Amino acid sequence: MLSLTAAGESLAGREVRIEQVRHKFLFGCTGFEFEAYANGDSTDPDRDERLAARWDGLFNFATLPFYWGRFEPERGNPATERLLRTARWFAERGHPVKGHPLAWHTVTADWLLDLDNADIAAAQVARIEREVSGFAGVIDMWDVINEVVIMPIFDKYDNGITRLCRDIGRIPMVRMVFDAAREANPNAVLLLNDFDMSAAYECLIEGVLEAGIRIDALGLQSHMHQGYWGEEKTLAILDRFARYGLPIHFTETTIVSGEIMPAEIVDLNDHQVDSWPTTPEGEARQADEIERHYRTLLSHPSVEAATYWGMSDGGWLGAPGGFLRADGTPKPSFDRLHALVNEEWGTDETTIADDAGRVRFNGFHGDYRVTCEGRTAGFTLDGPGEAILSVDLS
Amino acid sequence: MLSLTAAGESLAGREVRIEQVRHKFLFGCTGFEFEAYANGDSTDPDRDERLAARWDGLFNFATLPFYWGRFEPERGNPATERLLRTARWFAERGHPVKGHPLAWHTVTADWLLDLDNADIAAAQVARIEREVSGFAGVIDMWDVINEVVIMPIFDKYDNGITRLCRDIGRIPMVRMVFDAAREANPNAVLLLNDFDMSAAYECLIEGVLEAGIRIDALGLQSHMHQGYWGEEKTLAILDRFARYGLPIHFTETTIVSGEIMPAEIVDLNDHQVDSWPTTPEGEARQADEIERHYRTLLSHPSVEAATYWGMSDGGWLGAPGGFLRADGTPKPSFDRLHALVNEEWGTDETTIADDAGRVRFNGFHGDYRVTCEGRTAGFTLDGPGEAILSVDLS
Repeated sequence: MLSLTAAGESLAGREVRIEQVRHKFLFGCTGFEFEAYANGDSTDPDRDERLAARWDGLFNFATLPFYWGRFEPERGNPATERLLRTARWFAERGHPVKGHPLAWHTVTADWLLDLDNADIAAAQVARIEREVSGFAGVIDMWDVINEVVIMPIFDKYDNGITRLCRDIGRIPMVRMVFDAAREANPNAVLLLNDFDMSAAYECLIEGVLEAGIRIDALGLQSHMHQGYWGEEKTLAILDRFARYGLPIHFTETTIVSGEIMPAEIVDLNDHQVDSWPTTPEGEARQADEIERHYRTLLSHPSVEAATYWGMSDGGWLGAPGGFLRADGTPKPSFDRLHALVNEEWGTDETTIADDAGRVRFNGFHGDYRVTCEGRTAGFTLDGPGEAILSVDLS
Repeated sequence: MLSLTAAGESLAGREVRIEQVRHKFLFGCTGFEFEAYANGDSTDPDRDERLAARWDGLFNFATLPFYWGRFEPERGNPATERLLRTARWFAERGHPVKGHPLAWHTVTADWLLDLDNADIAAAQVARIEREVSGFAGVIDMWDVINEVVIMPIFDKYDNGITRLCRDIGRIPMVRMVFDAAREANPNAVLLLNDFDMSAAYECLIEGVLEAGIRIDALGLQSHMHQGYWGEEKTLAILDRFARYGLPIHFTETTIVSGEIMPAEIVDLNDHQVDSWPTTPEGEARQADEIERHYRTLLSHPSVEAATYWGMSDGGWLGAPGGFLRADGTPKPSFDRLHALVNEEWGTDETTIADDAGRVRFNGFHGDYRVTCEGRTAGFTLDGPGEAILSVDLS
């Protein structure tokens, strides 16, 4: 309930507009494709501006890429400036940014292979300190370490991070990278992230927490190239991972609007197809599944973020996983999520203040703007239950 | 190399017999079926005596059942005396005994469901203290806790142990039961045991070790109702679990001599068949696979024990997993393992001591007897590499 005044005077009987301007829930998406645009070297700025407008229509939270092998392919020559400009571009649009990931065995720096394990560890720590302190204030959220469950037994190719993790063990590895990130930015939100939704990730989490390592949020990947999970599976996973009392971020969701990847493929990277088209039936199904997925996540009190992995088709694996087709046109899933986020879960209502100048409304957590006769003020809904706020418009 | 004397005098040029009387490697088997015989209430003592002779021909180490729901179906009325007599019967035959298991969510006591979690924990600890101290000296090795990976998420039926483990977490659960067992018998060898050979068990082990809980040996179940693993898989598993530097026990091996259980069955208990016969082709295959399996285990320096799950057909799941058919006749696998254990890996050789009274031989770790002209002495080979022993026969 809002008690409204303007310059101290009651607004009894006046028409009042209440708009949500930002969800507290983090509706996230990768922002990789805006790097060129944000750095002024886009080959098609008009397309990028249209894409950005679409992006803003669904999302309020960006994930940017810090894969070590691409960020610093040559030791000592990191892409700091480019990423900093990209992150600032999002920040200026009002979107918090998460960096992904600081430590991972895949796409890690090849030059680690020339080092012994002690030097790999030192380089990993130095890399984390450099990025986390260098981006502090612009990026204050990090997927600190990715896929630790398989990290020491990853056997697709030799790499420095697997060598190190196998040598020192998973938990000391997690402690090392979290300590480095925490020290570099004590205000950052630090995530442990994994695709493994089995008991293995539970066992890892329990070991990490028992070892006294502070995790701010648990990241659950949720690529569904092999089919939408459905409510039952999603809620069962949430139930298992919510019991640690930590916020949960769905960090990497993909739901395709074309053929489903065969179930027998274990490593999704093994699915190489010449083309993977979006189809009308697939798009209808995707829209339904997107709606069901987001409804499920929003229904669970532990979930604080849901990041979609790729706004547009043709990203990872060439999959038709986007809300936009390769030609930039929106699929039904775009309109569906847009309506949920902005209409069903958003607020934009005009009402008349009662005799005491009060207005009642129900809204999702987030930032609001109230307007009356050209005057405006902001307020925030942040906690559960009924809130009674006094707002003075001036 | 042995330097032999008899009452202080060299045995140069004499004929000397060297026999291994016991392997240090633990060739184990369940001993459940001897409970009646050991307690004097067998319905067929002759059959049991023949079975026991067969058992002694292959094995030197017994596992006895301490499933709480069967050991103490009525609270306060445990089957201590029956199990103690059974364990002593094995001990008198020279076989160390392991108790299995002290904590498990399956076949646990139903009456735990009437307790709250604090009382379940207290009952579990008291149960461990009672068994581990009560059997000390007869049973000094325990599978302390079984299948912790799935313990808190086991959903086949409600039970007190799953409730407790879900409440307090896996690692506090492991700590609680290991602390109780360690305190009750500081000399006992205490195992963590699981069927899950995935990264989940690795993550659990790493969490347990990081938490400072001392594990004496890692138990790897290895029921192969769905087919023999083969050398590559077995060695890959050994490689992963050996990296903690702990002794490894293969705790529950089954290799069937009939049809293979379909691969799509996840919980082996779901495979219910009216009859599961042993077949001639299956027996030939089983004999080969038994040989390959034991050769693989004996080749790995971390493996200290291999326990077979059922000497005779018709045990768990009615599977034809035994070395003996249901009618008590030996399968080819019996003769195959017998030859490996006693001939290829055993020692019984007669030789002539050299001019200095010395005898050279190669043998597996274990206890030996040397005999010359009616005099005898024992010695032990315990460490790797060449041993030089002086033995006086008297």
